[in-house]
This record gives sequence, C-alpha cells and structure tokens, in this order.
Amino acid sequence: MKLARIGAPGAERPALVDNQGKLRDLSGEIPDLTGALLSDAAIARLAALDLSALPEIAEGQRYGAPVADTGKIICIGLNYTDHAAEVGLPLPTEPTIFMKGCRTTGANDVVHLPRGAEKGDWEVELGIVIGTGGLYITEDAALNHVAGYCVVNDLSERSYQMERGGQWTKGKSFPGFAPVGPWLVTRDEIGEAEELGIWLEVNGIRRQDGNTRNLVFGVRRIVSYVSQFYALEAGDIIATGTPAGVGLGFDPPVFLKQGDELRLGIDGLGEQRQRIHAWHG
Amino acid sequence: MKLARIGAPGAERPALVDNQGKLRDLSGEIPDLTGALLSDAAIARLAALDLSALPEIAEGQRYGAPVADTGKIICIGLNYTDHAAEVGLPLPTEPTIFMKGCRTTGANDVVHLPRGAEKGDWEVELGIVIGTGGLYITEDAALNHVAGYCVVNDLSERSYQMERGGQWTKGKSFPGFAPVGPWLVTRDEIGEAEELGIWLEVNGIRRQDGNTRNLVFGVRRIVSYVSQFYALEAGDIIATGTPAGVGLGFDPPVFLKQGDELRLGIDGLGEQRQRIHAWHG
Repeated sequence: MKLARIGAPGAERPALVDNQGKLRDLSGEIPDLTGALLSDAAIARLAALDLSALPEIAEGQRYGAPVADTGKIICIGLNYTDHAAEVGLPLPTEPTIFMKGCRTTGANDVVHLPRGAEKGDWEVELGIVIGTGGLYITEDAALNHVAGYCVVNDLSERSYQMERGGQWTKGKSFPGFAPVGPWLVTRDEIGEAEELGIWLEVNGIRRQDGNTRNLVFGVRRIVSYVSQFYALEAGDIIATGTPAGVGLGFDPPVFLKQGDELRLGIDGLGEQRQRIHAWHG
Repeated sequence: MKLARIGAPGAERPALVDNQGKLRDLSGEIPDLTGALLSDAAIARLAALDLSALPEIAEGQRYGAPVADTGKIICIGLNYTDHAAEVGLPLPTEPTIFMKGCRTTGANDVVHLPRGAEKGDWEVELGIVIGTGGLYITEDAALNHVAGYCVVNDLSERSYQMERGGQWTKGKSFPGFAPVGPWLVTRDEIGEAEELGIWLEVNGIRRQDGNTRNLVFGVRRIVSYVSQFYALEAGDIIATGTPAGVGLGFDPPVFLKQGDELRLGIDGLGEQRQRIHAWHG
C-alpha cells in the first residue's frame, strides 16, 4: 500500500494510491497520516477499506512528506561499501549515526541552498519509517516496528558539515534538506528492502546508481542498533545511508548550483524531483 | 516570571510561580506551555494575569519539563574555556554543534543509565528556550527570539559518545538524558545570562562550579550562529555547553553508578535533583 499526503504545505490531506494508481482521499477516515496511525493495526484498517468508495484526488497536486509529524530523522553514515570508498573513509565496524535537525519536506519541493553555500550535495537514501516505537528492539523483532519505506534525499552543505568544526549535523539540517516521499510504501510490499535499485540524476546525468544489496548494515540491524541509543517513536525516519556518486566523491567535486534539477528514486518507492535555488536575500 | 508544568508524566498542568513562591495553576488560561505560547505577546498576557485569582497547586508534585513540545535539543560543545581544557580539546574557533535525540524530561525525574553502561556522565548547562522561531537571526535581534532560560543536564554515556564510531549524538540521546527545568524563567529576569553561577554536585561533592562569564560564545552569538544552520522553532532548546568538572575530566575519571544523587543548578534558574538507576532487564 502506498500512502501519501496531498496538498499545499500545512494543508495536506491523507491519501492512498489505489490499484489503478489513482489517489484516493483518506481524510474522511483519518485526520492525517501521523505516527500514531502507522501501527500495524492502523495500517491494516486502511488496507481493509473499500477504495472505490473513497473520493478521488485530482492529479497534479503537491506531495507533502508522507508522515505529518516525524519527530526525528536519524541517519546512518557510510553504509554502502562504494560510498565509503569514494569519500576516503574506512568502512565502519558498527553503524555511524548522525541527526538531521530540519523538518521533512515534500518529495518535489524546491530546495534552497543556504546563503553563500558553495558545496551543496545530494544523497539518495532508503528511509525506514517507524510504525511502532521501542527501545532495545531485537533484530528478530525489528521489522514489526517498521511501518514501511520511503525515498529520502539527505541533502548536505559539505562546507558546513566538514569545515566548520565539530559534528556533521551542522551541514545536514538546513530547512528543506530532507525531502521525503512521494509515498510511504508499507512493509508488506518491500520486506527487508534487500535488493532495490537506488539512483539519482543531476540535470539528466546519472550520478548515483546503486543497490541496497551493498548496504553494510541492513534494515533489521539498523533498527535494532539505533534502538540501543535512542527511543524510536512512531513516525521517526531512519535514513540508511547513500551509495557511491555523491558530488563530493567526484574529482573535481561536483556541487549543486542555482537551477540544477535533481531526480532520484528507489525501486518500488517512487521518484522525487527537486529544483535547486540559491539563497536570495 | 517562572513557568512550569506540574503533574505526572503526560498529565502535566501549566503553572506559574507567584511572588510568594507559590505555584498557581494556569490550566484555566492556556491548554499547556507549548512553543506556540512562548512568544513575547503570549508571555506578556500571562504576566498581566491576576495571580491571586488563579488556583494554587499543592506542593510536592512532580515538575515536568517546562515546555510541552520541544521539537529539538541543540547543544553547543566545548563552550567553556575550563571544560575544553579538562577534556584536552582545543578551544573551538566557532561553536561546535550536536543534537540530543531524546525528549526532555522533568528536572527531578530518575535517570536510567543504558544497559551495561559504565561511563555515564553529567553536564550542567544553561538552556536557552526559543520563544519565536527564525532563520538567519542577527545577534542584535537574537534576544527577541529567546523566551527564557532553564537548567539542562546534558547527560552522556561517554563510551557511546566516543568509542562507538562517528558522532557524539550516539552518546547523548538515551531516553531521560535531557532533564530540563524546574522552570522556564523568562528573559526579562535573566537578560543575556552573562554572569550566573552554574554548579553540580554528585553525592554532595561539588564537581562543577563555574560561571557563565566563562562562556566562549554567549547567548546572542549562539542563537544567531545556530540559526544559520537550523530553522529555530518556538519551544526548541539550545544547551549552551558545560563548565569544567565533568566525570570524564577527573584523573581517574568518575562515572555515574546506581544510587548516585545529582544536584545541579544555575543562579536564578533553580535546582534539579536526579537519582541514578542502572538499567534493569
């Protein structure tokens, strides 16, 4: 099942994609797609609806982030063998974690680079959406805590991340740096996401072309691991790392600039498109 | 003005401390102390209330975190000259930022160390509570965005922070690792917090005994700086760093253990007391 939130920022309606690919309005069934409505029971209730009885939503409207109230975005760094190599860092022996301090935004929203930024970069990532929170989740039980998956673009300003002292979060948290969606695709369609193509293009040039089979740490391990350090809550998103092909990895590096067009996607999880704007003012 | 939230976890009522030090119930005036009710206008409205007409709250009840819906906790590292020296790290040339990925808890709530943790540590910090959000806030305008201040204990598990790969957030985010309060003290009482004693005791032994005059970066600079990387939102808390005397800084180090009693405070902002429990189960 594909869940989405359709409409202008702050006025999104919950929606579901039916078998014909049409968007059906869920706002008569639930107030919004919030973390509290991502439990297995809540998702089963949506799956049991008679979709033909739900109003259609006209095409061409904005996709908001598919979860209304994501509380935290936890990211796994250096989690693809090919990406660790390109940035010249050793493969981690256990997951590297950092946090993004921005809110999620829609899959196709314009991305504004920070004022004066010159090292904007992209990272297509598989996002795990937590459906049932927990602490000390075992690997065996991990999937029970996953509502589903989504595409995340873990945007960065590399100069803030790496040249301004301290910790990566400084370059990962500018508003708009976490486009999510278009959909939350429920777990039953994706399982453990063990072999999904994952790719990103800049101005039509394919820059990332990976596969989740190259994840150093897979979904079960990540959910279990993160829950040893954080209380996971419903609606939280874990971005699982990016494959090779980020701008920083090219020689010379390729960074984002005004007018660039990003297109990115993951098998079964849909596509995002973002236009890049420099900061004005 | 001192604002607080009184009651059991999840059932706190908003409250205000009157001139006689009595707690007065605000729940007839506002639904809760949320970020949206921390603007200058909203605080002015509370300040204009006839306190004698508000019901008294009986003493001896739990203090919850004074803001109900803190969205993010941003921390400044190495921001006291004496603390940077004790941990053997150079003084930063610009603020070091990391994030805590846990929710805030009450000032006197029990603190549970993570399972098997052996390097739990304390850090008394001046917390800035954002009242009005913003991006690219100037130093001149910074105080207009501050609702007030609070005591924060930036608890850590040092082994997670420093020995498990990657980024500090891993050791800063266990549930319960961000006691806040007892009060939010509004800006008019504290100004820029330029010379406040800040201290912490473990089992009656004074371990930290600093003063905010030794902050490397002050309140205006911090608010302005953080807002270049994050969109600050009302209710967010910035923990501004800790003075010398953390457990890690002693030779040999002194870490928290089952049964320890913490007591910590800042001039004008009140005191916290926490009992430390090892993880059971």
